[in-house]
Amino acid sequence: MIHQDIQLDENGRLRHFLTIEGLNRALLTEILDTAESFSGVTAQSVKKVPLLRGKTIVNLFFEASTRTRTTFELAAKRLSADVLNLSLSTSATSKGETLLDTLHNLEAMHCDMFIVRHSESGAAHFIAQHVSPHTSVINAGDGQHAHPTQALLDMFTIRRHKLDFTRLTVAIVGDILHSRVARSQIHAMTTLGVPEIRVIGPQTLIPVKPESLGVHVYHDLRDGLRGVDVVIMLRLQKERMLGAMLPSEHEYFRLYGLTEEKLAVTKPDAIVMHPGPINRGVEMDSAVADGQRSVILQQVTHGIAVRMAVMSMAMQRHPVGAAAGEK
Amino acid sequence: MIHQDIQLDENGRLRHFLTIEGLNRALLTEILDTAESFSGVTAQSVKKVPLLRGKTIVNLFFEASTRTRTTFELAAKRLSADVLNLSLSTSATSKGETLLDTLHNLEAMHCDMFIVRHSESGAAHFIAQHVSPHTSVINAGDGQHAHPTQALLDMFTIRRHKLDFTRLTVAIVGDILHSRVARSQIHAMTTLGVPEIRVIGPQTLIPVKPESLGVHVYHDLRDGLRGVDVVIMLRLQKERMLGAMLPSEHEYFRLYGLTEEKLAVTKPDAIVMHPGPINRGVEMDSAVADGQRSVILQQVTHGIAVRMAVMSMAMQRHPVGAAAGEK
Amino acid sequence: MIHQDIQLDENGRLRHFLTIEGLNRALLTEILDTAESFSGVTAQSVKKVPLLRGKTIVNLFFEASTRTRTTFELAAKRLSADVLNLSLSTSATSKGETLLDTLHNLEAMHCDMFIVRHSESGAAHFIAQHVSPHTSVINAGDGQHAHPTQALLDMFTIRRHKLDFTRLTVAIVGDILHSRVARSQIHAMTTLGVPEIRVIGPQTLIPVKPESLGVHVYHDLRDGLRGVDVVIMLRLQKERMLGAMLPSEHEYFRLYGLTEEKLAVTKPDAIVMHPGPINRGVEMDSAVADGQRSVILQQVTHGIAVRMAVMSMAMQRHPVGAAAGEK
Repeated sequence: MIHQDIQLDENGRLRHFLTIEGLNRALLTEILDTAESFSGVTAQSVKKVPLLRGKTIVNLFFEASTRTRTTFELAAKRLSADVLNLSLSTSATSKGETLLDTLHNLEAMHCDMFIVRHSESGAAHFIAQHVSPHTSVINAGDGQHAHPTQALLDMFTIRRHKLDFTRLTVAIVGDILHSRVARSQIHAMTTLGVPEIRVIGPQTLIPVKPESLGVHVYHDLRDGLRGVDVVIMLRLQKERMLGAMLPSEHEYFRLYGLTEEKLAVTKPDAIVMHPGPINRGVEMDSAVADGQRSVILQQVTHGIAVRMAVMSMAMQRHPVGAAAGEK
Repeated sequence: MIHQDIQLDENGRLRHFLTIEGLNRALLTEILDTAESFSGVTAQSVKKVPLLRGKTIVNLFFEASTRTRTTFELAAKRLSADVLNLSLSTSATSKGETLLDTLHNLEAMHCDMFIVRHSESGAAHFIAQHVSPHTSVINAGDGQHAHPTQALLDMFTIRRHKLDFTRLTVAIVGDILHSRVARSQIHAMTTLGVPEIRVIGPQTLIPVKPESLGVHVYHDLRDGLRGVDVVIMLRLQKERMLGAMLPSEHEYFRLYGLTEEKLAVTKPDAIVMHPGPINRGVEMDSAVADGQRSVILQQVTHGIAVRMAVMSMAMQRHPVGAAAGEK
Repeated sequence: MIHQDIQLDENGRLRHFLTIEGLNRALLTEILDTAESFSGVTAQSVKKVPLLRGKTIVNLFFEASTRTRTTFELAAKRLSADVLNLSLSTSATSKGETLLDTLHNLEAMHCDMFIVRHSESGAAHFIAQHVSPHTSVINAGDGQHAHPTQALLDMFTIRRHKLDFTRLTVAIVGDILHSRVARSQIHAMTTLGVPEIRVIGPQTLIPVKPESLGVHVYHDLRDGLRGVDVVIMLRLQKERMLGAMLPSEHEYFRLYGLTEEKLAVTKPDAIVMHPGPINRGVEMDSAVADGQRSVILQQVTHGIAVRMAVMSMAMQRHPVGAAAGEK
């Protein structure tokens, strides 16, 4: 139903970044390697490179997310691009024409890239299908479908700590069913060769046919965490709670909240991740969130580098190093 | 009542850009020529020129308009200016002192230019009358009075397609009475020598003494469109509809909506324009909006170049070419 | 209770700027001198210096203030920094963890400086206590505690007109009790050696033990203004009026509003100051606000230079001149 190859140009280079599906291991690795080179830039005193000078990048947010918008805005500014922040109401998208008119207007203003956040699955794909050849689209989260830059910053963080994806056991804990983050993570890990992916959560929050995702299902947290190298905690959306799918925050924490004691069954050097923002006392207690195993703030730092990598690759359509050399 | 010469400095150079009235053909042509030179810039890979580096441009919007604000913001950034976006409530303007205090404060911060959007006619003039000699004011739409940058981007678009203004017949269709866009367009076309300007609309939406504007009035769309070179469709404000001036959207479209069939009576190479955003199915159907005759997205593109031209001329007070040479 | 030395690094250089308390006369004078050097920059045609290029400065506003945010944003841009504007709801701060998580996330994105505005006294200190060593915090107003950049721009303005602080009599008029501006001004003047500071206002708006501040209290405006060199009018917060502490705006103006006639008892060359925005007809009439003695708009202009000075000193931790020489 969704054409994944729309993401690549005729030379197999990244043009849009909409979903992990359809991207091969070489391309994901190239993004991670490019992010590695930007990782140094953001630690420098002058945190800017002129790669996208004169380019116009639009944060096209149909769903509010100060946090995600901020990371893209910082990544764009550190690439020296001009950034335009537009908050649009989702009501407009019900009329498809209006959304397309908005898009075509921005393209007529020579905007070069759209960072799209939308509450409907498939919105970023829809936009990518309708932009002109010189424009790139980055999916910053669409409904319950995908959040590919989040997944890649997670992969970047895992690679920094574990080096070899092909020897890892990774557990994802929480609301797997509704999580675009989990979906993108599972695709990324599968592509990068992670041999064992576990999902842990109550029956109501696990997809109906998990075997189609190639994951192992656990309903007991301790069972699922036993011997893993990486624990990824998902954020619990409060609206799920209200929707009566879960008894209470307290009960959720008792069953699926991460504590030092539960963490003891993982490998001794296991790392703990979370896409943020954390609900302390719901998904994990503060001792874990701020503990030695937590790499949560590293994820945030790597998020800037990974977004700089994706943006610069999509705009340049060839490796950054080569671009720098050519010019 | 309004002193138009406030727009020019003692050497007859553009200082403020408030209305087309009072500007002569040479100056309008100079703006269009300057915009032509910027037109190339916005199509380049690095879409920036350093002409206004270190200048501070304030989008002073008392009336919300994401679209117009965006075009000015992009134009300013592509001239390398720093941009400040301020959304102010119109309630403040009821006390004139408060507005002036706001202005004088921004001037004291060494802001160089105000882009003013306001629901009251004359607001930009009022502000221009009270700023200090080094500050410029651009009218981005004031009440039902004027929208001069819109008119000039329309002239730019017409010139690109028709070359010679002095041989054209142009029709403006819709709510002429309340439209600041139409008023500014009529003044611009008159000054640039368009020999025949027609306005087409229901009796209730045509000014009482149209002959004072030097235009011909038609109430029948087909009659009015016969043989024209350019069709300018105005946006229908929904509030007019609610105000019982018009029976219904459907009825409006039947009488004044543009279709391929109605368009057939124009010259074969006639172009169709609209200031945007389009109400599809009200002012025109999608076949026309997206058809071969439509230059609507070109208008948007040219809007950036025209705004860069006006901004740089008002800030430099001499031709851009000369400025580059002198410095 | 509040550790003031947190503001200085181990070499006694400015690291955070949270309150005037604890800073000595040499440091305040260094800030004023640095501001003097930036004062020229903002009057230039290209109003930018590259001192903070590549730095990321976050306007972290928990309390809305377009005006104050604007001055910091302009100051940061004129230092060539990248600026991020974040408006956060105060409700978040009730859970301390959430605020800290927000902070740590922004730090993980390598933000270099937080400009903090908050309705609770001590908020900027709290944040400064929790940031990492490379991050600086500037207090842009916290509750009824302090507004140190406002106080220093006032000192800058006084020095421009009066040269020697040690010969001055200064009167502060209005709601001394609740004013963070007054508190910071009193500390700054005391440190800079102003020998006589008077506070003038109704009993209900004067602190209970004014002698601890080293000021003289007057309840009659004429008595208090007699022979002063500088008159600082405070802004009257409307909520105080509603809180029944004051009979009416009219009555307040009659007793404490500044008029030409009341101003006649000051020294002939006395200046009139106000932090803005002015409530005309409440704190003073327009003849005074716009009169020859008023230096109110100069305060605004100097506010940019003082904020550039504080920001650059906190980021560089050594004098600006030396920094320029070293690089």
